[in-house]
Amino acid sequence: MVSKTDSGKTYRNECTGDALETVKKHTKEQDTTLFGSCFCPFVQRVWVSFEYLQIPYKVSSLDPYKKPKDLLEVSPKGLVPGLKLNHFNPPKALNESTVILEYINDLAVGSNGRSLLPPITNPYSRALVRLQCDHVNRSLVPSFYRYLQAQDEDAQINGGKEFHESIEGLVKLLERTENEVVRSGGASGEGERKALAVGLGLWIAENEEDIGLIDVMAGPWLYRATNVLKHYRGFELPHGERFDRWIKKLFNHPNFKSTCNTEDLYLDSYERYAFNRPNTSQVANAVNSGRGLP
Amino acid sequence: MVSKTDSGKTYRNECTGDALETVKKHTKEQDTTLFGSCFCPFVQRVWVSFEYLQIPYKVSSLDPYKKPKDLLEVSPKGLVPGLKLNHFNPPKALNESTVILEYINDLAVGSNGRSLLPPITNPYSRALVRLQCDHVNRSLVPSFYRYLQAQDEDAQINGGKEFHESIEGLVKLLERTENEVVRSGGASGEGERKALAVGLGLWIAENEEDIGLIDVMAGPWLYRATNVLKHYRGFELPHGERFDRWIKKLFNHPNFKSTCNTEDLYLDSYERYAFNRPNTSQVANAVNSGRGLP
Repeated sequence: MVSKTDSGKTYRNECTGDALETVKKHTKEQDTTLFGSCFCPFVQRVWVSFEYLQIPYKVSSLDPYKKPKDLLEVSPKGLVPGLKLNHFNPPKALNESTVILEYINDLAVGSNGRSLLPPITNPYSRALVRLQCDHVNRSLVPSFYRYLQAQDEDAQINGGKEFHESIEGLVKLLERTENEVVRSGGASGEGERKALAVGLGLWIAENEEDIGLIDVMAGPWLYRATNVLKHYRGFELPHGERFDRWIKKLFNHPNFKSTCNTEDLYLDSYERYAFNRPNTSQVANAVNSGRGLP
Repeated sequence: MVSKTDSGKTYRNECTGDALETVKKHTKEQDTTLFGSCFCPFVQRVWVSFEYLQIPYKVSSLDPYKKPKDLLEVSPKGLVPGLKLNHFNPPKALNESTVILEYINDLAVGSNGRSLLPPITNPYSRALVRLQCDHVNRSLVPSFYRYLQAQDEDAQINGGKEFHESIEGLVKLLERTENEVVRSGGASGEGERKALAVGLGLWIAENEEDIGLIDVMAGPWLYRATNVLKHYRGFELPHGERFDRWIKKLFNHPNFKSTCNTEDLYLDSYERYAFNRPNTSQVANAVNSGRGLP
């Protein structure tokens, strides 16, 4: 049933469910502090990656719309996620989810050898993953918000179509990666095939453990499609044997699950977007004014 | 003098000046073919990088609006730049300028050791460069086109202001990098300072040779600001001792210069944008419809 009236619920500030358990495990001071908000998908990207890459971190939950001083110090636009890097003196800062992802991946490669990307010795595989990520940032993410904020029926139908096409575009890129790399004659045998599979993501990985950059880049919005878009727009993810298997592996991956809240938190937090309330967020305003996301 | 009437000139298909000389030097078959168009700034990003990173390439100039089959095979939307990777059998393909830049940088790091990015052992420096690049893609580049395509006076005034602010935002990020990395107490002496300077770009580099990722990411639009925006909008780049020095080093860098055409080529090729002729390009259409760049 699609919700038709704005009940005036607003965003939450405290994690619930699995995400709350994970917050509780990360309250000790560490070299890195992650400033985040419980419902934010850009934060979830980074949070899943900290867990998967096994980089120690402290998590600090805050209200991103109040622009607390702690946040503005690390993220000039007051957007989450932001990192405070306490091992520098004085501490340094970093913002922008994609920049943070590359940063913590570099940290992991240099410390414990874990990685969300294929190794640098396989530049073409890395490039195909980056092509998928570029599609997510420039198509999947903005079309999610356009769809959710669309108010009249025509705009909602178009929004749903566009979001659906964007998912299909991602599937094409995943299939291309599989065809060109994993099944390619260029890979010299089984050893290389396994090396390549690391970082290529759960679509391709042999086992159910190897998360890749594309999983953390796209996962948060695909997940919100199954609760927020389903509730407010009656949306259903497309089906297909490979796609269904990927989504199941992704949503059940322990590092992804451990950053998910209970469904009610998402429904409450996104009602503002679903009814396109004025000044919902910098992201919502950018979408309404036809600008790129901040 | 600002041009006020559309003289109906259209884009060129053949390089001129220094760029033509460079094309002539890259007609032999190589492992990599770069498909490009003479006036395209996204292509110039990649072209400068091939030159700087000393990766062998063949250049193939084409008319991007005719969507030749060669191009569609390597770039599904028919956008330049595209790469054909002839050392695979069958050949593989790659598109999107930022993805291509990371790819050829990985290739160079693995072969001749050259790089547009600080080394992976300096993840924070790398992250600050990526933060600059993110700003270029999401602010500087779209605001260039919005300004150039703006037709009425108010929109042009706003467009100029916005483009100017975007350049100032970039300068702030460059200054931040300098303060936080190069002059930081964290750098353990002169050796590390020099190591860090590699890949941080001409803003920071000690000598006039070390191009960085930000130079190739932003340079093509800053250059077109000095001819296209100057001619059609009366725009002047901001001035400042550090900024002027950077721009001079960048525009005179041999690898940048070698991919520049004569001014008339840019003025002719961008008249379509300056008068916002219908269906000028996928980029122009995206700007007109308030969508992110394709």
